Amino acid sequence: MPILVMKFGGTSVATPDRIRRAAKRVGREVANGFDVIVIVSAMAGETNRLVGYVEETGPFFDAREYDAVVSSGENVTAGLMALTLQEMDVPARSWQGWQVPLRTTDVHAAARIEEIPTDNILAKFGEGMRVAVVAGFQGIGPDGRITTLGRGGSDTTAVAFAAAFGAERCDIYTDVDGVYTTDPRISDKARKLDRIAFEEMLELASLGAKVLQTRSVELAMRYKVRLRVLSSFGEMDADAGTLVCDEEDIVESNVVAGVAYSRDEAKMTLISVADRPGIAAAIFGPLSEAGVNVDMIVQNISEEGRTDMTFSCPTNQVARAEQAMQKAKDDGQINYHDLVADTDVAKVSVVGIGMRSHAGVAAQMFEALSAENINIKVITTSEIKISVLIDRKYMELAVQALHDAFGLEKAA
Amino acid sequence: MPILVMKFGGTSVATPDRIRRAAKRVGREVANGFDVIVIVSAMAGETNRLVGYVEETGPFFDAREYDAVVSSGENVTAGLMALTLQEMDVPARSWQGWQVPLRTTDVHAAARIEEIPTDNILAKFGEGMRVAVVAGFQGIGPDGRITTLGRGGSDTTAVAFAAAFGAERCDIYTDVDGVYTTDPRISDKARKLDRIAFEEMLELASLGAKVLQTRSVELAMRYKVRLRVLSSFGEMDADAGTLVCDEEDIVESNVVAGVAYSRDEAKMTLISVADRPGIAAAIFGPLSEAGVNVDMIVQNISEEGRTDMTFSCPTNQVARAEQAMQKAKDDGQINYHDLVADTDVAKVSVVGIGMRSHAGVAAQMFEALSAENINIKVITTSEIKISVLIDRKYMELAVQALHDAFGLEKAA
Repeated sequence: MPILVMKFGGTSVATPDRIRRAAKRVGREVANGFDVIVIVSAMAGETNRLVGYVEETGPFFDAREYDAVVSSGENVTAGLMALTLQEMDVPARSWQGWQVPLRTTDVHAAARIEEIPTDNILAKFGEGMRVAVVAGFQGIGPDGRITTLGRGGSDTTAVAFAAAFGAERCDIYTDVDGVYTTDPRISDKARKLDRIAFEEMLELASLGAKVLQTRSVELAMRYKVRLRVLSSFGEMDADAGTLVCDEEDIVESNVVAGVAYSRDEAKMTLISVADRPGIAAAIFGPLSEAGVNVDMIVQNISEEGRTDMTFSCPTNQVARAEQAMQKAKDDGQINYHDLVADTDVAKVSVVGIGMRSHAGVAAQMFEALSAENINIKVITTSEIKISVLIDRKYMELAVQALHDAFGLEKAA
Repeated sequence: MPILVMKFGGTSVATPDRIRRAAKRVGREVANGFDVIVIVSAMAGETNRLVGYVEETGPFFDAREYDAVVSSGENVTAGLMALTLQEMDVPARSWQGWQVPLRTTDVHAAARIEEIPTDNILAKFGEGMRVAVVAGFQGIGPDGRITTLGRGGSDTTAVAFAAAFGAERCDIYTDVDGVYTTDPRISDKARKLDRIAFEEMLELASLGAKVLQTRSVELAMRYKVRLRVLSSFGEMDADAGTLVCDEEDIVESNVVAGVAYSRDEAKMTLISVADRPGIAAAIFGPLSEAGVNVDMIVQNISEEGRTDMTFSCPTNQVARAEQAMQKAKDDGQINYHDLVADTDVAKVSVVGIGMRSHAGVAAQMFEALSAENINIKVITTSEIKISVLIDRKYMELAVQALHDAFGLEKAA
């Protein structure tokens, strides 16, 4: 029988009643003829409760024990989901990570999946079991101890299972009903997309649209797993949600798929840096070591051997960035006149694989912002994305203007 | 280094702060030169919460999934205890049942321990680890799935580890500070015993003194594990609590060690049973099948081929006993005139290995009750115990009178 992977997040299994509602969706797919692998998160709030206990033991904790503690939340949900399915006469059983065994690297609390053997679960499907409920977010390391994949690892678990079992599709049930052209809280013209390409989803995910974990999208793209995002609270509808798929599977699409934003950006400018070969490495090496996630980088035209270097990073990393730069200056690695931090900016981006074949998207974007008198502070572009930094107070206005300018309220 | 097993019950690890207090006790034993195996229960209330979730799924649940769910409570405590010990610079790590692996039978939710390999943990002790924290109450079945030992199984886990590792002693930390000559809530003359023999403890445990699980005492007796019961809330004192040990280790003792009681007893009398060989089997077979825990049995002198048969059972099993007897009568297996249930009785017992060598204990007991005008309804005796059924309203009075009569307020 074809295999379907269904993943339910914490809010979808927050109570026994919600687990029952999720189990009904699983039962319907079994009735549709699928053998189903269900990946479950911990009941909403559980992981935070357990992490809180661990943090109470002290500031520096053994990540192996952290993993042993926090993984228990998913184990509880897996057992309860199996019981609920059995109660509905659906043959089901639970697997904890070590029982699969889902093998990972030994990087506790942030392990990566190395291997998912399929024989054990396939044998049970062969014996008439219809649903394997697997505790998400966890595995077993080379030393036989429990590992976790880091927050959001349940999405990654689901995609990895879909890849390993050659599943027809991987359905991610969450508390939103799909991927939108932009945040509906900012624009009431936001429209749910029926389909979106992996590449677009990746850009949107990394730009702060918190629907899917970036890692899970990367994995889905690599293994060509058809990924569907849909709400566990909506109607049961075969066409619900948004399908994240290969771009060949998208027949018609707008040039721009969506407008994303990120509120917590800071713009940092190193003024009058002594320009020389290797200066970029001398700046961004220490920033990376200090754990600063540099996003955009712009270097101004060099004049008389000196240049201005601008970069962006999350607002809460500004202090860290300043320290790292000061230290690099004190150590004689770099030489600059001043470091100016502008923490009142936001990033707005348009994303779409259609840009590859359509010229003029950037011009159209700048024009739309100019028409609203919004000043652009930094611009960066990739093959399928254009991002700008602007004053934070214009962020909502910019998102709405761009959504209108690219006609996103209407499907292609 | 000598090995000590320390077990902490649910109230002793109910909060991160209590876990810290328990960890301090462990740290002290490490400083005393022991390698310590700590067995932990789930935080107080956790197991009930998890069982509640399972019961919400429906009335007939898969015990394998029940085990997978409820065992997670102990896993959380084990990790937190290891982290807390590490924070105190005590080298520690946690083990879940399947990691030891503690092998059990496949009777889920009521499994019995079959094997505890010691190599894994001993190797870690050899590498400098000082504390192995083991999640109590759980193991792994022949099919590789998680099993639990039933409620109270953490005491049994602790004793089994002490036996497997040849531990110096097994300390059970609980919320009472030892075993008393009787319930201090009933007699203010109740005295904590420094030592008690396994056999006495077994009788007291099965008579309703809820300090230790009967199974754990049986196991300790079989493998000669010195078992100490003590409070996790009292002073840290090497001589605290009560040592449950071989009777040879008790130099002086009273003839009677303690007075136990059980409030929820019912006396059932089958009146005018047709007496014939095999009649006892015809009565008690059906009762056993119906799940009635028959305790005392008394058969009156047979007259003209008919006899009265009296037995006792817990009050809440009376209806079940009546149904079983009616059915056996309807099926023609037995023939009786009437079944009279007296649900207003209580059982009071005196227990002591000294009875073996001292005649007259029974007479002394009956005299003390008679002096208080307490009527005895049923008597049974074993080698080290005499039990009587009396009207429930005299229970406290009887306990106090017997405690006085045998001089239990003073040590031998």
